[in-house]
Amino acid sequence: MPTQSLEYPKQPYSTVRRYDGRASYELEQIHQIINTSLLVNVSFAVPDSPFPQTLPMIGQMGSFDRPSADTGDVLDLYLHGYVSSRIMNLSRKEEGDASVSSSPADTPVGLPVTVAASHVDGLVLSLTPNSHSYNYRSATLFGYAAPVTDPAEKLWAMEFITNSVVRDRWRNTRVPPNGAEMQSTSVLKVKIVAGSAKIRSGVPSDDKADAGDEALLDRVWTGVVPVHSVLGEPIPSPYNKVERVPGYLGDYVKGTNQYAEETALEQAGKAMKSKVSKTDD
Amino acid sequence: MPTQSLEYPKQPYSTVRRYDGRASYELEQIHQIINTSLLVNVSFAVPDSPFPQTLPMIGQMGSFDRPSADTGDVLDLYLHGYVSSRIMNLSRKEEGDASVSSSPADTPVGLPVTVAASHVDGLVLSLTPNSHSYNYRSATLFGYAAPVTDPAEKLWAMEFITNSVVRDRWRNTRVPPNGAEMQSTSVLKVKIVAGSAKIRSGVPSDDKADAGDEALLDRVWTGVVPVHSVLGEPIPSPYNKVERVPGYLGDYVKGTNQYAEETALEQAGKAMKSKVSKTDD
Repeated sequence: MPTQSLEYPKQPYSTVRRYDGRASYELEQIHQIINTSLLVNVSFAVPDSPFPQTLPMIGQMGSFDRPSADTGDVLDLYLHGYVSSRIMNLSRKEEGDASVSSSPADTPVGLPVTVAASHVDGLVLSLTPNSHSYNYRSATLFGYAAPVTDPAEKLWAMEFITNSVVRDRWRNTRVPPNGAEMQSTSVLKVKIVAGSAKIRSGVPSDDKADAGDEALLDRVWTGVVPVHSVLGEPIPSPYNKVERVPGYLGDYVKGTNQYAEETALEQAGKAMKSKVSKTDD
Repeated sequence: MPTQSLEYPKQPYSTVRRYDGRASYELEQIHQIINTSLLVNVSFAVPDSPFPQTLPMIGQMGSFDRPSADTGDVLDLYLHGYVSSRIMNLSRKEEGDASVSSSPADTPVGLPVTVAASHVDGLVLSLTPNSHSYNYRSATLFGYAAPVTDPAEKLWAMEFITNSVVRDRWRNTRVPPNGAEMQSTSVLKVKIVAGSAKIRSGVPSDDKADAGDEALLDRVWTGVVPVHSVLGEPIPSPYNKVERVPGYLGDYVKGTNQYAEETALEQAGKAMKSKVSKTDD
């Protein structure tokens, strides 16, 4: 376990240029943003198209070799999504190409992907439109994606991802998957080479000229509208026969909502370095 | 106004291949998903990097020429984001290149971008991990981004985007922006050439073998946990002097929350074509 917080190396493509005071390269912060996101956006280049492809997928950072690793440790991103044939074929192709090409030995095999996830924590409403902002936490990861082929690792990843959607769900369903299910399920592992986070928190901030304008202050409401995600009351399916919502599910809904609401309020309340100064929004 | 719903043309890069029964190419549906998203993810290729760049930005679809256009009309995407220097420079470069190159006359100028937005409407919990799913609405747009240079259009877009964050906010702040504010603000317009949406709604679905297993049905809770975003109680800033939360803001918070919750519940309740059949999750 690291004795100090680990950081991703700054690469030309991963360095935050605008409002770099909001940037962080700490694994802990970046992984936390990814692992609390219901979806991540996976983008990659597609041959013969000027447009990158972007797919929303379910993703979670973990370690098959050290399953008890902390959020701040070196981890892999495991992806399980709805649209996989294209990305999988491209991954395999890249993998094949790499093995016969002259690419440097230290370039990981797989498809280069950019993975992005964002939480909006609040609408920051100040005196002028230009100083309006969001409180947010966004993370971007850069890495090489390849299908998981080892059956043990694949099974581990399926359980890991399922339990990231609802804690403890896996063992409370019909498992293990049968052969056909294992066959039809694809899991991608992304070896991360760089990453960054960008975070804005706190109260609004306005230029001195506006903040000193009493007539303006008397007219314009300023503050933060907290934003967070909510899990509602579980709705039983037409074929559900379990009368009560199970404890693990009720607890998960409650805990997730509490964390989301507390985070939004905490981010809203954080004091800005200077409350009334040149805005950097 | 169109008498029937308009659709984006299917391009090789925009056609949904997996679970294509969930796909839609209707402008109305795609634009609605984009315009109700707090952030969109904008991805584009970067020279000398194997990784696309992905930036979370505030975006809204509208029409400067026909400001009263419907959501289902042909619209442009206006973007206003935190990190813009790189994308802006690339846009300008692409624009410059196009004017002297031999690119076909019908290729729009600007930087090719892929814009993605997703709402998760529910966790769909079925009998086996493999048939688990999300209810979701995701949209992807493909187009060419270029900075808005006409001052009238830029001012219109700034008001349009501000009011998309909180309805009616613009005229309740200090406007118009001064010269320095106009100078320091960048707005991108994306000319859309293709787009698609993918939507999953309804109750869980399981294989016949599992759905006929009484012992399994007695043990595993199945159903949907609705998911939606919430705007919390507005928190005044340290320098706020307006005692009550203004009506337009209170109404906006209430209306947005109601729409989000109703949508999640509506998506959860939609009957699947077949409740117990081969899953396509």
